[in-house]
Amino acid sequence: MHTRPRVVIIGAGFGGLQCARKLARAPVEVTLLDRHNYHLFTPLLYEVSTSLLNPSDVSPPIRSIVRSARNTSFGLVEVDDVDLDAREVISLSGLRFPYDYLVIAAGSTTNFFSNASVERDAHTVKELPDALEFRNHVLRCFEAAEMEDDDALRRTWLTFVIVGAGPTGVEYAGALAELVDLVVRNDYRRLSRDMFRIILVEGMDRVLPSFLDRLGEKARRELERRGVEVLVGRRVEELADDRVVLSGGEVVETKTVAWAAGVEPAPLAGRLRLERTGSGRVRVDERLRATGHDRVYAIGDIAAVLDEDGHELPMMAPQAMQEGRYVARAITTELRHKEVRPFRFRHKGVMATIGRNAGVAQIRNFSLSGRPGWLAYLLVHLYYLIGFRNRLAVFGQWAWYYLRYDRPIRIIARARQMEADAEPF
Amino acid sequence: MHTRPRVVIIGAGFGGLQCARKLARAPVEVTLLDRHNYHLFTPLLYEVSTSLLNPSDVSPPIRSIVRSARNTSFGLVEVDDVDLDAREVISLSGLRFPYDYLVIAAGSTTNFFSNASVERDAHTVKELPDALEFRNHVLRCFEAAEMEDDDALRRTWLTFVIVGAGPTGVEYAGALAELVDLVVRNDYRRLSRDMFRIILVEGMDRVLPSFLDRLGEKARRELERRGVEVLVGRRVEELADDRVVLSGGEVVETKTVAWAAGVEPAPLAGRLRLERTGSGRVRVDERLRATGHDRVYAIGDIAAVLDEDGHELPMMAPQAMQEGRYVARAITTELRHKEVRPFRFRHKGVMATIGRNAGVAQIRNFSLSGRPGWLAYLLVHLYYLIGFRNRLAVFGQWAWYYLRYDRPIRIIARARQMEADAEPF
Repeated sequence: MHTRPRVVIIGAGFGGLQCARKLARAPVEVTLLDRHNYHLFTPLLYEVSTSLLNPSDVSPPIRSIVRSARNTSFGLVEVDDVDLDAREVISLSGLRFPYDYLVIAAGSTTNFFSNASVERDAHTVKELPDALEFRNHVLRCFEAAEMEDDDALRRTWLTFVIVGAGPTGVEYAGALAELVDLVVRNDYRRLSRDMFRIILVEGMDRVLPSFLDRLGEKARRELERRGVEVLVGRRVEELADDRVVLSGGEVVETKTVAWAAGVEPAPLAGRLRLERTGSGRVRVDERLRATGHDRVYAIGDIAAVLDEDGHELPMMAPQAMQEGRYVARAITTELRHKEVRPFRFRHKGVMATIGRNAGVAQIRNFSLSGRPGWLAYLLVHLYYLIGFRNRLAVFGQWAWYYLRYDRPIRIIARARQMEADAEPF
Repeated sequence: MHTRPRVVIIGAGFGGLQCARKLARAPVEVTLLDRHNYHLFTPLLYEVSTSLLNPSDVSPPIRSIVRSARNTSFGLVEVDDVDLDAREVISLSGLRFPYDYLVIAAGSTTNFFSNASVERDAHTVKELPDALEFRNHVLRCFEAAEMEDDDALRRTWLTFVIVGAGPTGVEYAGALAELVDLVVRNDYRRLSRDMFRIILVEGMDRVLPSFLDRLGEKARRELERRGVEVLVGRRVEELADDRVVLSGGEVVETKTVAWAAGVEPAPLAGRLRLERTGSGRVRVDERLRATGHDRVYAIGDIAAVLDEDGHELPMMAPQAMQEGRYVARAITTELRHKEVRPFRFRHKGVMATIGRNAGVAQIRNFSLSGRPGWLAYLLVHLYYLIGFRNRLAVFGQWAWYYLRYDRPIRIIARARQMEADAEPF
């Protein structure tokens, strides 16, 4: 028989990991489940996509992170379902993980807004395999263009469309512009900067819709100064045969559409028999418990946590982290038979970078832009990176990039695919 | 019309790259072709396979390397054939590269010795995608074992067979033993070192057959001290269904066979209408020209370059590098209408490492082992790495590993496969 309550956490993203770490010394047994063996620091994923960081720099192994927590074990599994009556999490391969408390932190997935052509052909920007694929693809486009004699075809290889001008889209566009500037000038004899087009498409009427107006405007000017074409109030209608059709009928010939237009709750949310809101997220009470289930918590992108005005919090890392820590405290408080206070989100701010010396940050009552905004961005991201080694590695890469004007991780490489290599779980 | 002679080099491995760099200031136009966009520093590939180095640490982009050579251009192509009459290299996609001088430096590929079951199921250790796949696979074996309740099945996940006890096999076995020691102790609650088997199988009667007897013996003892089972005088008969059958009938249950048993000339050698030796390598004269072709050179693994006793030089990096530099000099000498002297290989030595503080090195008349051998190994490999950034990166990783007893790049990750992502060349 087990003596300590068992906490099973589904997902080792920002929310799940914070929850696990906060429970490290609590009188519980923690089982952390994820379908990857690493925690992904998604805010810097665009720097993997654009040849600045190594994949390992943003993906510390989960086992390393929880190593010192003696009450915590990790399972590399894809969670298929939860048996809420039997209180067991069930993996795709049929493994069962019994729990006394469950924390659902399975995150989100790309939202294609039911556009099948986008889902089929666009590059996603959410997971590490996406970033590696995008890096390979972009570098291959440069190589193909260098050997292409037909002007129109060459332009198709060198046109990059980013959809969505939230922080992710802005960062992809800015970093791509920088990659082109730094690399093309030096490395490609037959290409010049004016052959390239980088187009940022946004459905709303401005860049960085969730930021203050003037910060969005600054970001737009910085992007344009770096040669990015910014199209606001436009949507992607269709992708097909190296073409994007935009609302209004404009057609762009391109081999590359990166889809940063939004996310939706992970499919697991739909498989559980839990009440959900219109956004598809799991409905939770003020203590982040799923409706009707005292010991089932949901946090992060998959959970519909409300702010003071009754709006759902956006699907972002700081929200997930605060919720993860809150749930850890709530569980230990309950175990001590003390009163658990409702969750209250503390808004710390938002930030994004456009590239070298250019960032925008909105921190509580004041805002930063330009170089101060950029420095704030760097410091905050170094601070939130997990693990000394990862901070050291990212700092080293940034220093190299800043001093040498180089994005050095320019390899087109993928793991060899072996037939016998299917996931065993 | 072109005014300067055109030199086309097939392959940017050790031989081709040395040749290109040596021609950087010669009055020729150089075209360097490779099917990868990076130069692979193969001697350290096993450290990518065993979670110590990032892929980018051992694979600088070729364009970065030849950036300063204004007479050199690079083409990312798979060479399909050479039209020796028209003097043109032809890529798979049909691109043609006319030459006045041709340097064939296409290297080698894994030799499966006609064993179809090995070719189908063994892990190869030759290219970067092999190393990434091997790393993913090994880490996945650890994870599967951690969740396996059946003892026999768990042992199958934790048994690793390396075939071939040349430097590559020895290094894989030693590094794998270290990975197990460092990682399992800290990260896996249910696994212990004695559940693992690492088996090194060698067909000849000793470890490191090309080294002095006593160095091979030292390497064997070091491996055994680190828990590697060394089986000499044994061959792999067959792989099937998680089993290896060895000569003599012994059967080992395993999910992992790494094939480091040998290489053979790249398939291009067979497609060209050039005379070859019994080993399949292109026959060359004492000036490294293919028989009957004044301006076609072959170097490195693909060429049958003879030593003073008339034996073919082994397929190794130092040989290829000396041959590459020689051919560059031979071409420029000929262009100045001076006499070209025959190629003569200078034997610099061989080395291998078993792990932390343990290496063997045989340099001209003297040999080193233990920690001095290991330090010599580290210094020589740092020296031969190309590019300041790569030296810095590898040195940093080694320092971390040495001081922290860690192999940190433990991510199971592959690039997402997209349908539209087929090679365009």
